[in-house]
Amino acid sequence: MTAKIAINGYGTIGKRVAHAVSLQDDMEVVGVTKTRPTYEARMAIDNGFDLYAVSSEHVQGFKDANIPVQGTLSDLLAKADLVVDCAPGKKGAANLDTYKKAGVKAIFQGGEKHETAGFSFNASANYSEGLGKDLARVVSCNTTGLCRTLYPIYKELGIEWVQATMIRRSADPGDSKKGPINAIEPVLKVPSHHGPDVQTVVPGINIQTLAVKVPTTIMHLHTLVVKLGKPATKEQVLDIWKNEPRICFVNGGEGIKSTAQIMEMSRDLGRDRSDFYETVVWKDGVSVKGDLLYFIQAIHQESDVVPDNIDCIRALLQLETEAKASMSKTNKSMGIDN
Amino acid sequence: MTAKIAINGYGTIGKRVAHAVSLQDDMEVVGVTKTRPTYEARMAIDNGFDLYAVSSEHVQGFKDANIPVQGTLSDLLAKADLVVDCAPGKKGAANLDTYKKAGVKAIFQGGEKHETAGFSFNASANYSEGLGKDLARVVSCNTTGLCRTLYPIYKELGIEWVQATMIRRSADPGDSKKGPINAIEPVLKVPSHHGPDVQTVVPGINIQTLAVKVPTTIMHLHTLVVKLGKPATKEQVLDIWKNEPRICFVNGGEGIKSTAQIMEMSRDLGRDRSDFYETVVWKDGVSVKGDLLYFIQAIHQESDVVPDNIDCIRALLQLETEAKASMSKTNKSMGIDN
Amino acid sequence: MTAKIAINGYGTIGKRVAHAVSLQDDMEVVGVTKTRPTYEARMAIDNGFDLYAVSSEHVQGFKDANIPVQGTLSDLLAKADLVVDCAPGKKGAANLDTYKKAGVKAIFQGGEKHETAGFSFNASANYSEGLGKDLARVVSCNTTGLCRTLYPIYKELGIEWVQATMIRRSADPGDSKKGPINAIEPVLKVPSHHGPDVQTVVPGINIQTLAVKVPTTIMHLHTLVVKLGKPATKEQVLDIWKNEPRICFVNGGEGIKSTAQIMEMSRDLGRDRSDFYETVVWKDGVSVKGDLLYFIQAIHQESDVVPDNIDCIRALLQLETEAKASMSKTNKSMGIDN
Amino acid sequence: MTAKIAINGYGTIGKRVAHAVSLQDDMEVVGVTKTRPTYEARMAIDNGFDLYAVSSEHVQGFKDANIPVQGTLSDLLAKADLVVDCAPGKKGAANLDTYKKAGVKAIFQGGEKHETAGFSFNASANYSEGLGKDLARVVSCNTTGLCRTLYPIYKELGIEWVQATMIRRSADPGDSKKGPINAIEPVLKVPSHHGPDVQTVVPGINIQTLAVKVPTTIMHLHTLVVKLGKPATKEQVLDIWKNEPRICFVNGGEGIKSTAQIMEMSRDLGRDRSDFYETVVWKDGVSVKGDLLYFIQAIHQESDVVPDNIDCIRALLQLETEAKASMSKTNKSMGIDN
Repeated sequence: MTAKIAINGYGTIGKRVAHAVSLQDDMEVVGVTKTRPTYEARMAIDNGFDLYAVSSEHVQGFKDANIPVQGTLSDLLAKADLVVDCAPGKKGAANLDTYKKAGVKAIFQGGEKHETAGFSFNASANYSEGLGKDLARVVSCNTTGLCRTLYPIYKELGIEWVQATMIRRSADPGDSKKGPINAIEPVLKVPSHHGPDVQTVVPGINIQTLAVKVPTTIMHLHTLVVKLGKPATKEQVLDIWKNEPRICFVNGGEGIKSTAQIMEMSRDLGRDRSDFYETVVWKDGVSVKGDLLYFIQAIHQESDVVPDNIDCIRALLQLETEAKASMSKTNKSMGIDN
Repeated sequence: MTAKIAINGYGTIGKRVAHAVSLQDDMEVVGVTKTRPTYEARMAIDNGFDLYAVSSEHVQGFKDANIPVQGTLSDLLAKADLVVDCAPGKKGAANLDTYKKAGVKAIFQGGEKHETAGFSFNASANYSEGLGKDLARVVSCNTTGLCRTLYPIYKELGIEWVQATMIRRSADPGDSKKGPINAIEPVLKVPSHHGPDVQTVVPGINIQTLAVKVPTTIMHLHTLVVKLGKPATKEQVLDIWKNEPRICFVNGGEGIKSTAQIMEMSRDLGRDRSDFYETVVWKDGVSVKGDLLYFIQAIHQESDVVPDNIDCIRALLQLETEAKASMSKTNKSMGIDN
Repeated sequence: MTAKIAINGYGTIGKRVAHAVSLQDDMEVVGVTKTRPTYEARMAIDNGFDLYAVSSEHVQGFKDANIPVQGTLSDLLAKADLVVDCAPGKKGAANLDTYKKAGVKAIFQGGEKHETAGFSFNASANYSEGLGKDLARVVSCNTTGLCRTLYPIYKELGIEWVQATMIRRSADPGDSKKGPINAIEPVLKVPSHHGPDVQTVVPGINIQTLAVKVPTTIMHLHTLVVKLGKPATKEQVLDIWKNEPRICFVNGGEGIKSTAQIMEMSRDLGRDRSDFYETVVWKDGVSVKGDLLYFIQAIHQESDVVPDNIDCIRALLQLETEAKASMSKTNKSMGIDN
Repeated sequence: MTAKIAINGYGTIGKRVAHAVSLQDDMEVVGVTKTRPTYEARMAIDNGFDLYAVSSEHVQGFKDANIPVQGTLSDLLAKADLVVDCAPGKKGAANLDTYKKAGVKAIFQGGEKHETAGFSFNASANYSEGLGKDLARVVSCNTTGLCRTLYPIYKELGIEWVQATMIRRSADPGDSKKGPINAIEPVLKVPSHHGPDVQTVVPGINIQTLAVKVPTTIMHLHTLVVKLGKPATKEQVLDIWKNEPRICFVNGGEGIKSTAQIMEMSRDLGRDRSDFYETVVWKDGVSVKGDLLYFIQAIHQESDVVPDNIDCIRALLQLETEAKASMSKTNKSMGIDN
């Protein structure tokens, strides 16, 4: 029997998780929620999902727009084994009670605090710790991207410290409200929150981060300097990453000069929604000098956490006990061929 | 037996036409060409196409990069009934001789002059004129977009004149070289070439255009004023367009406020490469005052000509004699549900 | 004795009008207002202006930030002959009562409705109608730009109709909040409000407009098609504009290809704040075919209304009865050499 | 008697240096050169400078455009004591012979290699080393910005290492050709050349840098992590910088959230061309944890080297022997009030 999954919130993350769940043979989507009758609500139905209003007060709006809903969130939770909370950031905590009362396990996204779930998850770093848990938080796109490349280095070579700068896209591609148009905006909380967030997954790592926002809509980019536990070579580092199922190498020499070409490559790969699930590392941008490792990676903010959500479902519901097996199953279903 | 199609140039248009041909049951791709061993060349093979070097001098480059090629353009043409020229703009004319010598029919893109083929094609406007011809030019993305909305109005209501402004994206999404970053750049050839280009397809139409470039990578947008042959109503105009197979309506009221949300909708629709093949008209941006029709449409520069290329192949090879039948077949294969 | 001018609101327009008033010999700034103790408030004082809080409830904020204020708006109005309302759009109407009670004449900006003042002003078109009036509205940057080029054509050659598209910058250069980043956003109210707004100044003109927003911070750009009252030549049109004091020609051939180079030219001209006060017309983008005139103009959204505010002060206070004399005086003081 | 200064190249840097020289009482501009008759050439004359063609083959172009030139570069050099080479990057080296033959001292810009002049100059770090030299290179905008904040820290507290990321604007505001529009482009040479470039001025400093390009036209932004020679406090660091004549603090809390508001502030300050000469440090973005100093600074790419060019002229011609005296004189003339 397949696990019944509810998706609370069918926005940027929710619609992707819903689609990814529908590709698995050990779980299925029992319904998705939406607050307002936008074109995305219409799309949810066109894509074959049962639609629910977030609460009873929102039902009328859907009726007025001739978009049929099957009930409200509580109706949906009654049918589910687990809910993936994809509500807008900071709303998840408020939903926690609802989920508890309904007696369903719950997965939150990186917009929520670690404390909401008490456990932060990244498939590459701590899958097994999630087995059987009732609550988990899949860390944010940036933290997910950082865990994937840093954790295996930490494990194999040791890390004395990491200094990273996160150059963040300012708005998602489907968002035409946010700016800036012609400015670079630093995060003045220095160091930024991204370092401590990595530590919710890998407690022992000494990492500090700075962050800026730039006027693009596609992909975050990280520059990183890592003081290794011991001197190493570029080859050693590449070998470690080669074995990781969610790291993808690109080459500037083959024409992948910027985040634009990575996104173009994704379109050519036929990925769903032209997404890119892996952490992308420029092979010709990796440099090791003694015990200092420099590298540059790009992160698709809308989708890199999606496979980890699937794995997290498996861990919490104990559908699969081995990280590698779950990740491999997820990857195969989503066209990630590592 | 299926028609053998060669694609000369596997770039922005070429890779899309190749994919679209591969979706049809009455034609197949016998090979595609590329000049340099970029990641796109690698993708061509990954996507199952036989790769050919454009000329013998380019073969070594592919060898050096370990990308296998099956020969050169002339080898490819020897296997083909028809070649779709997707070489960079202005290079097609030089290729004409090669195609003639090889005895294959040829379709050029809108970057070439009308005179190169002597016949300009748009499926919605003049499919039947293309039947059995040896050469055709599928008009540019902007002209294609204009023909689709203007031709049926011209036929049903008459058009005294059209004044249109084309607000053009400056670079394709996969192109990180071109600017401008923070400027609006007018085309100082006034009126612009787009008006006369529409007349290569619909000779009788009186249309003038102005054009500007703006710093975006997705979709052109057109503002249009049409003096109709007689007074009409908004409903009449919408009814005419409703019957057209490659016009898609969107509503600002449902959250489609800009080209950003149209592209997002395309991702949600699961279109290949997140493309948008139809001319997109804002339903709540159509206004008719007496005999003046105002409207706003958006054009996906990378893909709106792709279905017309497929129809053009059918017309030239007489695989189908009726426009509606060909367009319907093409639409169905590509997920265009009108 | 010089006229006493209060500036209510020291933001994008207010700080420019304040500076421009300070350059005149027949008027002086008695004070400016601000709601919050931002860096702009600090700058007001550094630039030599007396600062007032908009209302008593805002006084404490300035005290806390150690920025001295001289009182509140009502204190300021008591010293003034005329107030230029540069409050954020739509707030001016609410201020009208305050101004009336204080017994000062008032000038509003284009963000307010025509009805607020009952009289809409553009120096090039209707200076003399403003003489001695108590209230006026200086029309918006776009409407000002349109009046300057269209009114003289309307007067000399007649205009049957105008069809224009306004391609608008989305945010001011100092604003890093607004987007969009990578989208073109049409105004779905079709035709847009700009046409009727021109008619508040030139009632007889038949003009329709469409508008879109694009991701730039500098200058609006207009494409225009004008059906003249009679056939004319390009030379005739250029001759008419040559005599206008606030039209500036540029040439694409000399490297002015876009709004970027116009702004660069302004920096080279040493204009205050690198502003551009004139309507900028591309000479090599003007075309006349029979009775159809096509042209392209650019408008500096932050500053083109500033000289008209100065002239409007002179008209209302009857400091000068002739339009040409006032405009010439204003131009000279601001470095506009036409 | 005032020193005679020639400016070879009247582009982005050249026009600014020319203007700055004209503000000094101990030097004067004897002429500027240009290759083509653009609007900038016209502006040079309007701004009162004698114009020379770069070489005799360019003279005709100016004649055709009715822009008078006074001769060629060699005529100009004959009148000069010192030439500031503001030719496009990498052309300066070729000019070196010309300057030597003409027997004039020469200052190059940061686009040239250190070896061209054999001495790299930054007023804050090594003014006295330049006294009486024949050749110097004023380091690039980024390197200048880095030297100003790092050198005093290095001198006062010691520096063990610096890890910095340079987030670079992609095109100047007056340039509408370059992109990218919607992409982040890393420099794949890792670490980047900026670190070694700082060492041409401060040889003992251990600094590594990474760099990315982002789609903006205004200001570079640097994120920096500095391992100090000993633990310190934020107050100590701010005190050190407070005494530096070309560091300017801004506060996010007062509304300076991004590079956009810094540029707006510059317009409000009435700076020539709305330039910003100082290295701008966010006071609320400085953080010291033990011996780790984190900070964020912004650099105006078009103008921060201009005051250093003036000081470099004084050093080479020994017009002033003390760094502080020269910098103070330069600052005062340009409106830099530190």
